[in-house]
Amino acid sequence: MKQQKLLIPTLREVPSDAEVTSHKLMMRAGLIRQLVSGVYTYLPLGFKVLKKVEAIVREEMNRSEAQEILTSAIQPAELWQESGRWDAYGPELMRFKDRHDRDFVLGPTHEEVFTSLMRDEINSYKKLPVTIYQIQTKYRDERRPRFGVIRAREFIMKDAYSFDVDTAGLDESYQAMYDAYHRTFKRCGLNYRAIEADGGAIGGEGGTHEFMALSEIGEDTIVHCPTCGFAANIEKAENIKVPKQQQNLEELTLIETPNQKSIKELASFLQVEEKTIIKTLLYKADEQQIVVLIAGDDEVNDIKLKNLLDATNVSMLQDDEIEALLGQKPGFLGPKGLPANLRIIADYKVEAMNNAVIGANKKDYHYKNANPGRDFNVEQFADLRNIQLGDPCPKCNTPVLFDRGIEVGHVFKLGTKYSKALRAKFLDENGKEQLMVMGCYGIGVSRTVAAIVEQHSDENGIIWPKEVAPFHVHVIPINVKNEKQYEVALNIYNDLLAKGVEVLFDDRLDRAGSKFKDADLIGIPLRIVVGGKVDEGFVELKYRKTGESRDLEITQVTSVLLEELNQLDL
Amino acid sequence: MKQQKLLIPTLREVPSDAEVTSHKLMMRAGLIRQLVSGVYTYLPLGFKVLKKVEAIVREEMNRSEAQEILTSAIQPAELWQESGRWDAYGPELMRFKDRHDRDFVLGPTHEEVFTSLMRDEINSYKKLPVTIYQIQTKYRDERRPRFGVIRAREFIMKDAYSFDVDTAGLDESYQAMYDAYHRTFKRCGLNYRAIEADGGAIGGEGGTHEFMALSEIGEDTIVHCPTCGFAANIEKAENIKVPKQQQNLEELTLIETPNQKSIKELASFLQVEEKTIIKTLLYKADEQQIVVLIAGDDEVNDIKLKNLLDATNVSMLQDDEIEALLGQKPGFLGPKGLPANLRIIADYKVEAMNNAVIGANKKDYHYKNANPGRDFNVEQFADLRNIQLGDPCPKCNTPVLFDRGIEVGHVFKLGTKYSKALRAKFLDENGKEQLMVMGCYGIGVSRTVAAIVEQHSDENGIIWPKEVAPFHVHVIPINVKNEKQYEVALNIYNDLLAKGVEVLFDDRLDRAGSKFKDADLIGIPLRIVVGGKVDEGFVELKYRKTGESRDLEITQVTSVLLEELNQLDL
Repeated sequence: MKQQKLLIPTLREVPSDAEVTSHKLMMRAGLIRQLVSGVYTYLPLGFKVLKKVEAIVREEMNRSEAQEILTSAIQPAELWQESGRWDAYGPELMRFKDRHDRDFVLGPTHEEVFTSLMRDEINSYKKLPVTIYQIQTKYRDERRPRFGVIRAREFIMKDAYSFDVDTAGLDESYQAMYDAYHRTFKRCGLNYRAIEADGGAIGGEGGTHEFMALSEIGEDTIVHCPTCGFAANIEKAENIKVPKQQQNLEELTLIETPNQKSIKELASFLQVEEKTIIKTLLYKADEQQIVVLIAGDDEVNDIKLKNLLDATNVSMLQDDEIEALLGQKPGFLGPKGLPANLRIIADYKVEAMNNAVIGANKKDYHYKNANPGRDFNVEQFADLRNIQLGDPCPKCNTPVLFDRGIEVGHVFKLGTKYSKALRAKFLDENGKEQLMVMGCYGIGVSRTVAAIVEQHSDENGIIWPKEVAPFHVHVIPINVKNEKQYEVALNIYNDLLAKGVEVLFDDRLDRAGSKFKDADLIGIPLRIVVGGKVDEGFVELKYRKTGESRDLEITQVTSVLLEELNQLDL
Repeated sequence: MKQQKLLIPTLREVPSDAEVTSHKLMMRAGLIRQLVSGVYTYLPLGFKVLKKVEAIVREEMNRSEAQEILTSAIQPAELWQESGRWDAYGPELMRFKDRHDRDFVLGPTHEEVFTSLMRDEINSYKKLPVTIYQIQTKYRDERRPRFGVIRAREFIMKDAYSFDVDTAGLDESYQAMYDAYHRTFKRCGLNYRAIEADGGAIGGEGGTHEFMALSEIGEDTIVHCPTCGFAANIEKAENIKVPKQQQNLEELTLIETPNQKSIKELASFLQVEEKTIIKTLLYKADEQQIVVLIAGDDEVNDIKLKNLLDATNVSMLQDDEIEALLGQKPGFLGPKGLPANLRIIADYKVEAMNNAVIGANKKDYHYKNANPGRDFNVEQFADLRNIQLGDPCPKCNTPVLFDRGIEVGHVFKLGTKYSKALRAKFLDENGKEQLMVMGCYGIGVSRTVAAIVEQHSDENGIIWPKEVAPFHVHVIPINVKNEKQYEVALNIYNDLLAKGVEVLFDDRLDRAGSKFKDADLIGIPLRIVVGGKVDEGFVELKYRKTGESRDLEITQVTSVLLEELNQLDL
């Protein structure tokens, strides 16, 4: 395509609201524009890349024999009421009423729609398994949209749903999607990791994986083991039980700790390590209040806590709620002497602690030499903390490492959660009614575009991997007013087009420096610069990735480029 | 693809809510399912056809150098307030609030979004003209969704917008789209007409065309001339002035017409033709009340009336409003003796009438021999009526014919309506600010699928035109348990696949009759039936369109089919 009239509004300045590389570059290279917070327009270049990612996703889905369909973005509230999510979903669910005052949602996901479709259309085991998918617009009213299209309110997802006769079938369907996701993200040129994630009550072992594009700006922490390859979301990564040290139990002693409310202050005041202090935290798990004990240098993992208690929501009590419950302000809370009806649970690490410091439930006082079992009772010990950098790998004991990642895909074993709620049943070989066993599988298509940019750029702009590049070759005559240059460039452009190569032709009457700056920003892999050397029969081939360049005879340009494009690595 | 697990839920019964052929067949052939009134899911076959139509639209847009982008379906209310449509648009506009209580709409169209994009990104004549388009989901909260995807609440449209420096440029951009639409609908296999439509105050001569797929179920009436090719929407088709007959003017006479309120009753009572009676109608044009006179056998064309009065809305007065205004009930209204401040306008045909019947503004009385000018005054005569079947063509006087059509496309010269409201300006060659001159161009992509089905079917099912067929060849082994039949069929299937042919393989263990019924319903152009004759080395080739069939040697199947596919007409 010719660049003069093409809508590629590049920017020299970084937009003030763009915090991360991909957002900055997608704006600067003219790929996207914001319409309103978290809502974007894809301009021609951005649209082309989006379509390339979509095409890869589609090819790999079809290769897995998933069937493409298209459902609506608007969904009737009734379906969400049937599944129970109408009440459970928070303000991220966009709701509206139609002209007849009926409730609708703008779908953030489509479990209900796909499950009800299968319920209505499939009734025999002979028609199963089926995996159906769509590439479609989704809505999530993020409290704080950010990072451009990474966390948007309207975005494009591929969502797939598998329906099997049993869990063995689900395992196969799941594996097919898992493999397709690997092929997809490899083709997109992403540096990514498939990691174990939290599957809630249903997922179970190996029941859910997240595909994480590695990136410092990622909102998820990835725990991984350099020895055995274990990788998991920090939400999911288990801690192995800590062996109890054999140590003499000292006498429990009340100590004065005036105004030493935080663990940090207290450790410093007492000249002890934070990990020798036990934090006493009060939680609300759905309607139940509960005490959680954890080592001073650890963080409670809410997901683990939720799963242990089989709760829908867990959150810490507010200060005023604590005061109402215990008659004291937080700061000196401890597990000794609490009301007998308050359940106390503790992290495994607390079980292994000797002679620890705990709050005395009295302003400005703590105890030292507190020991679980002897000085206070714990109803249950469990893995309740986030794993820490250097903690032992749950699989092989090697100290774990941390990465950060952008979630670009998620595969999930749903089991019968939705088929049960929506009564999606089939008749098995014996004519008996069974619930369909489901999996669901998402890829953030628009987010993947941003993740690619996040990983493939330098200080001058984007460096597109070949399979997703908006164009493969950028032909730039330095001076379009120079007839010879323009003609040679135009011939090269037309030749390449005729060979099916995707070419952008910079026919703009701008200064060479400005054209090169734009070319760097846009990041097309191969560049042909047509300048002064045309008189000697040469043009320049430049590689965006390495910055290397070499002269090519004009007559050889097409054949050399076709060869390069065959080889150009991702 | 193999049919056994493919989600093609065919139906033997016609769904009770399906009124028209396309809706019935799209349901029965398993192309679509309704989620809720006016909202549909496209199942694999329906999705494939949708994508084929989309691909044709995209190719023809790109051939016209239109640039594809993608904007959001949700749009902030502010943009609609800027254009004035926030208030002007009725309940068809779906509105909602986000979590911060900000108003949004689900876009039924995107003039505001595209205009604001161009306003923000383009400021020089050097970057114009530009035509940008998208293929995207639109929303219209129809009062009465019907005919399946023909009148749906969520639907897929291609909408394009052109931006030019002047009206001459707009004419060119418009022509390019007009030509692209012809290519598009031809390739879709549609029998259609491009007709002149109403362009409102802006469009002017040749300023807007509708592309109508001819169909009895069409909601629009197409007026066309068998001689000169003139074709227009009835809303738009002009009437030529009727020459006044020279006739003696008789004396105005009050006559008693007890209870003869309607034109029909009155004509019968007086033993005269309806066209000799003048209807006196009271309208509200925005806030103004006005009297409209029209021949007894004509209908007022609201659009013409609206354009004449330059009004946003026109509607007839309610009976109680008439009574409040004139102190009489409707039935005997007439133009003589009305309050002087009431404007009276009349259709051209009234100007030509002599000795007509009019109401006497007195219960149970009319006048006969009423003559405009002599017995009552008319402020303005104009073309205010719908053209009638057999009326003279406005271009060549031949009696016109009527057709009905489904609107599948619309091209429209907008001029500066939106660029003015949204201040979309550019600097011209002299550095002077000018408003961009716009056109807008829509294709109902999902509606086009239905229009194709409406035109291409027989009593057994759909007959797909080649370019939009979900598959080109349907391979059907009669008995999949017969090893020879199955193997031959599978080989043919694999051979065709390898040659890039889109093939559906019916590997279902169903009775032959049931499989053939489904095949007819689904409507794939070419069918290979593998039955008993395989033992002699033959299979059957059947054409869906003609029902003709012939035997083919197994070894020749692929080559014959490839040849057929090259030739198969639309």
